[in-house]
Amino acid sequence: MARLRVAVNGFGTIGKRVADAVARQSDLELVGVAKTRPGYEARRAVARGYPLYVAGSGSPEKFAAAGLPVAGRLADLLGKVDVVVDATPEDVGRENRALYEAANVRAVYQGGEEADVAEASFNALGNYDAGRGKRSLRVVSCNTTGIARAAAVLLRWGVERWDVTLVRRAADPAETKRGPINGIVPTLEMPSHHGPDVRTIFPDLPIATTAVVVPTTLMHVHVNHVRLARPPATAADVVATLRSTPRFVVFAPGEGVEGTPQVMEVARDRAGEGGRRSADMMENVLWERGIRLDGRDLYFFQAIHQESIVVPENVDAIRAMFDLAPSKDASIAATDRSLGIAHG
Amino acid sequence: MARLRVAVNGFGTIGKRVADAVARQSDLELVGVAKTRPGYEARRAVARGYPLYVAGSGSPEKFAAAGLPVAGRLADLLGKVDVVVDATPEDVGRENRALYEAANVRAVYQGGEEADVAEASFNALGNYDAGRGKRSLRVVSCNTTGIARAAAVLLRWGVERWDVTLVRRAADPAETKRGPINGIVPTLEMPSHHGPDVRTIFPDLPIATTAVVVPTTLMHVHVNHVRLARPPATAADVVATLRSTPRFVVFAPGEGVEGTPQVMEVARDRAGEGGRRSADMMENVLWERGIRLDGRDLYFFQAIHQESIVVPENVDAIRAMFDLAPSKDASIAATDRSLGIAHG
Amino acid sequence: MARLRVAVNGFGTIGKRVADAVARQSDLELVGVAKTRPGYEARRAVARGYPLYVAGSGSPEKFAAAGLPVAGRLADLLGKVDVVVDATPEDVGRENRALYEAANVRAVYQGGEEADVAEASFNALGNYDAGRGKRSLRVVSCNTTGIARAAAVLLRWGVERWDVTLVRRAADPAETKRGPINGIVPTLEMPSHHGPDVRTIFPDLPIATTAVVVPTTLMHVHVNHVRLARPPATAADVVATLRSTPRFVVFAPGEGVEGTPQVMEVARDRAGEGGRRSADMMENVLWERGIRLDGRDLYFFQAIHQESIVVPENVDAIRAMFDLAPSKDASIAATDRSLGIAHG
Amino acid sequence: MARLRVAVNGFGTIGKRVADAVARQSDLELVGVAKTRPGYEARRAVARGYPLYVAGSGSPEKFAAAGLPVAGRLADLLGKVDVVVDATPEDVGRENRALYEAANVRAVYQGGEEADVAEASFNALGNYDAGRGKRSLRVVSCNTTGIARAAAVLLRWGVERWDVTLVRRAADPAETKRGPINGIVPTLEMPSHHGPDVRTIFPDLPIATTAVVVPTTLMHVHVNHVRLARPPATAADVVATLRSTPRFVVFAPGEGVEGTPQVMEVARDRAGEGGRRSADMMENVLWERGIRLDGRDLYFFQAIHQESIVVPENVDAIRAMFDLAPSKDASIAATDRSLGIAHG
Repeated sequence: MARLRVAVNGFGTIGKRVADAVARQSDLELVGVAKTRPGYEARRAVARGYPLYVAGSGSPEKFAAAGLPVAGRLADLLGKVDVVVDATPEDVGRENRALYEAANVRAVYQGGEEADVAEASFNALGNYDAGRGKRSLRVVSCNTTGIARAAAVLLRWGVERWDVTLVRRAADPAETKRGPINGIVPTLEMPSHHGPDVRTIFPDLPIATTAVVVPTTLMHVHVNHVRLARPPATAADVVATLRSTPRFVVFAPGEGVEGTPQVMEVARDRAGEGGRRSADMMENVLWERGIRLDGRDLYFFQAIHQESIVVPENVDAIRAMFDLAPSKDASIAATDRSLGIAHG
Repeated sequence: MARLRVAVNGFGTIGKRVADAVARQSDLELVGVAKTRPGYEARRAVARGYPLYVAGSGSPEKFAAAGLPVAGRLADLLGKVDVVVDATPEDVGRENRALYEAANVRAVYQGGEEADVAEASFNALGNYDAGRGKRSLRVVSCNTTGIARAAAVLLRWGVERWDVTLVRRAADPAETKRGPINGIVPTLEMPSHHGPDVRTIFPDLPIATTAVVVPTTLMHVHVNHVRLARPPATAADVVATLRSTPRFVVFAPGEGVEGTPQVMEVARDRAGEGGRRSADMMENVLWERGIRLDGRDLYFFQAIHQESIVVPENVDAIRAMFDLAPSKDASIAATDRSLGIAHG
Repeated sequence: MARLRVAVNGFGTIGKRVADAVARQSDLELVGVAKTRPGYEARRAVARGYPLYVAGSGSPEKFAAAGLPVAGRLADLLGKVDVVVDATPEDVGRENRALYEAANVRAVYQGGEEADVAEASFNALGNYDAGRGKRSLRVVSCNTTGIARAAAVLLRWGVERWDVTLVRRAADPAETKRGPINGIVPTLEMPSHHGPDVRTIFPDLPIATTAVVVPTTLMHVHVNHVRLARPPATAADVVATLRSTPRFVVFAPGEGVEGTPQVMEVARDRAGEGGRRSADMMENVLWERGIRLDGRDLYFFQAIHQESIVVPENVDAIRAMFDLAPSKDASIAATDRSLGIAHG
Repeated sequence: MARLRVAVNGFGTIGKRVADAVARQSDLELVGVAKTRPGYEARRAVARGYPLYVAGSGSPEKFAAAGLPVAGRLADLLGKVDVVVDATPEDVGRENRALYEAANVRAVYQGGEEADVAEASFNALGNYDAGRGKRSLRVVSCNTTGIARAAAVLLRWGVERWDVTLVRRAADPAETKRGPINGIVPTLEMPSHHGPDVRTIFPDLPIATTAVVVPTTLMHVHVNHVRLARPPATAADVVATLRSTPRFVVFAPGEGVEGTPQVMEVARDRAGEGGRRSADMMENVLWERGIRLDGRDLYFFQAIHQESIVVPENVDAIRAMFDLAPSKDASIAATDRSLGIAHG
């Protein structure tokens, strides 16, 4: 069977991971990746054998001077594919939309874009079927993805209201220009944009989100309080349900995982086990001791790896758009198997 | 009128500030301070002219070798005072209780001790009158003090339930041994101890607290969601009420105060203005833009300076115990005037 | 005697401190300060009673809207003074030069400007006399000031060569936008600009400087290795010499001062003692145990408070330009007495 | 040919990496690993299929309760091997020495132990042949390994003196208890222990080392100034020599690698390419622009990944002790090929 031809435009934090993930799918073909500058990430594309194209205002001469062979410009790449994953910086995706439409390729955008960049917003556990047949989708941002996955689980018990405090990492690990170095910066816009954003997936979700930014590069942590309509009997039921849901990991007491540093240590430890990509944690991460059920009130922490959590969602978005899988569950299972994503 | 004689045992982060504050009260006399080790803080006591006593297992010879004159041992100091403020490290206060009782001096403990160390827990705005005539009081911890002050304001509108996420600073500025350096550590005990602790002041408060620890040394930040029974008409009413309450500062838009680093910058800027002690922010700090009222749901951030917020509370605790002031408001006004504590 | 009339243009980290310092000199009069935006720092100027002028593209209307009374524009201020201290951001000082010349006022620039912005570069201990009678001076930057002061001491023993590794703070405390949060960034330009810059004070100094940037906001630390021509007998001689030199503090073993966090804690502790401004450490800070003499090789650490170390230098620069003091030592002594600057 | 049987005692930061490395050698057999506590790292050992033994005071019951099958106690493991790599915490290795001797197994210790724990200290590029036939070796610590490798290169040009400032990471990524969070702490013992330690490899090296600790978890950075006796003609010669030496990587201008955060990003990117283990950078890392030759004075930065740099050295130490390789170069080449260690 011919594989669907995929391009990735933007090869930074998200783009390079999506490219790796696409390359591992049996029903997808990574035709090439596009980048504007010949830095270490472009070098990585070449090392992985991904045909490299020059995007935007990039100069092929600079790539040549850096010893990096290029296969053409973004427009050339777009001429060869069925769909492009846009992983360019915030707001650039919208600028690229005309290019993609002119080339008659479908497009998957990231959550840094406004919702109306695409026909629908997407989260695999949340609204896979809404993505079917669409010509464009937007995978919601890392924090919204984490919330949407949790919503997909919690809604079985009825959500009467949901408060989330997002304790956000200030920068990705290699973003050396961003602060703060020492301090906490509240996001004074209230509610934060995450609540409205998750309602692009679950329109009626009674959720209120508030955010602060803190000096760390590893992961976000969400502090949740959910009033359930029909709660399960015990917190252990919540734990069991989460452990049986794809893309959730719940650490047990005694494992020595106290915070996000140990979560990322485990992620590094697992690299190479079961096909997992190095250092990434594509699952929602919870702590068993950090899940408390008090009558109808459920409290829990979850940690979200901002660099990688949307990666499997991008793969599933493509499958939904082109109806490549018989069901949501089949798509998720295929993606997770190929990437070594766990649950448990 | 003879002034009440006060000792401060422990001259670290809290003790040195309480000593300064006591020394500025017209109705209190700072008789001396006690410390175990002759480091830079002991040096500061001498520089300020506070008689220095050797506490616990400390060695007078080591103080002498460091050129620091001492006036005796803790027991000597206790023989000269009416009350001691215990500002020793967590759990040491309880060990000291027998000493204080044997010396027949009343005692003010800090929030690091369990509640039953003293006859009552104390917060000036919260329960000043409960402190009257007591032989021992416990000033609740920095975070609990911040919450109790806010409760004293909010209860006028009826509190149906209150969620607080405490984003906690991991160490004080000079605590170089404590981490984490890069990461977020959730406090997996749920609810965190702060909720039960604030109920030592307001026994029926329907509050749930959850905490995470983040890599900063400056201030805690609380993220609050309160369901009010009888809310005011607008968020502006909340702002106005807070601005007219002692020990609250609300930053306006346009002041350029984005997060805790700028709050502490303002604190440093104000040092020396109106009698304020350097670099401290003894008020609850809020942001006008960070106060949102949505029907009966009130959302707000507040920042708490862990080093200093309990300082005025210790002074008021002494006044309450010995009935030195005609009323709560009079005590608070006297303390705040002497320390340059603002509201507005 | 009529006092020399001084303006301060720029009221940020350096400007606000210089203004305070000028206001405390008996031979200088702070006529006003200028600022472009009505944030918390402008508010501080008003609280201190400094006439406030609107600089550059700033809008008097915005100051009025913020409730901040202004006395005019920068040009008005320049018309009333003999000298302006330019404490504007890097490179803006150069742009301002024409304004100052047109107003026929002398000017003191900061070290963020290139050396040729002024007739000479200046450091009080280093080359006070070179500043006499000049119409413009440039106070060298914080790191260069720290090195120049040390050079003024070390040259008595002959410096054959000097290596400095500058471990630089990445941001000032309130600069929340700057990183890195977790990592070390070497300054790949070698030698760093500090070596050439210190030669604007000591033209023949055989110094090589190298720098790295690290995630802290408190102080820089210099790691020094100096080959001396005629070393003193012991490290204790070096310590004694430093302790008897203005603007040097050497911490003794046993004081418990392990690193820059405790240095800044001491600075906060000393605020209000002997006229010291809050939280600042205007002296070069050394550790007695961190001074080692091995034959002709002297090794030492020194910590430099980037926010304040140049403040006394600006005052002395004005005195030198207008020949207000009988000697270098007299100017330094007057400045230090007024600001509570220690040595010892 | 029968493979040499190897145990790893201690399965933390270093031990787990050494175990992985041993498991990849065709001439070594990883018989088992020992650990005291059943946390996430023990779980990793099981997941990788490494027989797990209980060390020290550890309780087999606790492992069983955590669902982790154990194969026995450390003593059982020692009975089955020819050599043990001791990767236990500092000073525990020395306590273990009697166990190893009683079991008649040879031992490789880590650099946290004093030099006299073993017959010789070891660095592969530095003194491979000194390890031949020894019954015990000590692989020098991460910083000393980095310096020793550089020394092995630089000595061809004659080293007249060498100053190193070590800018040290304060904690490993998952060590959440260690600080400082905001500040620089000088190592007041001068010279730091690194200079004497590197002379366990190169006894006559005229090196002076000084250290500071900074708030980062990623890598150390060394700032070097070397006076060479017979320098090469240009810095480009130094670069070329380093690039042709095993275990050195030199980043070129234009790659966008500015500091340790990007170095570790590249390390993560390369995981899975050419057999590299995730997220590790076992090479000395330099920057081409950060290498300057000024006559006989060579200046350079190098970054050292504290978690992994000693891993290949442990493998080579085993080969040297048992004379498993025909030469130093052959051992290094075999190790590097198996682990995907680059040079260039």
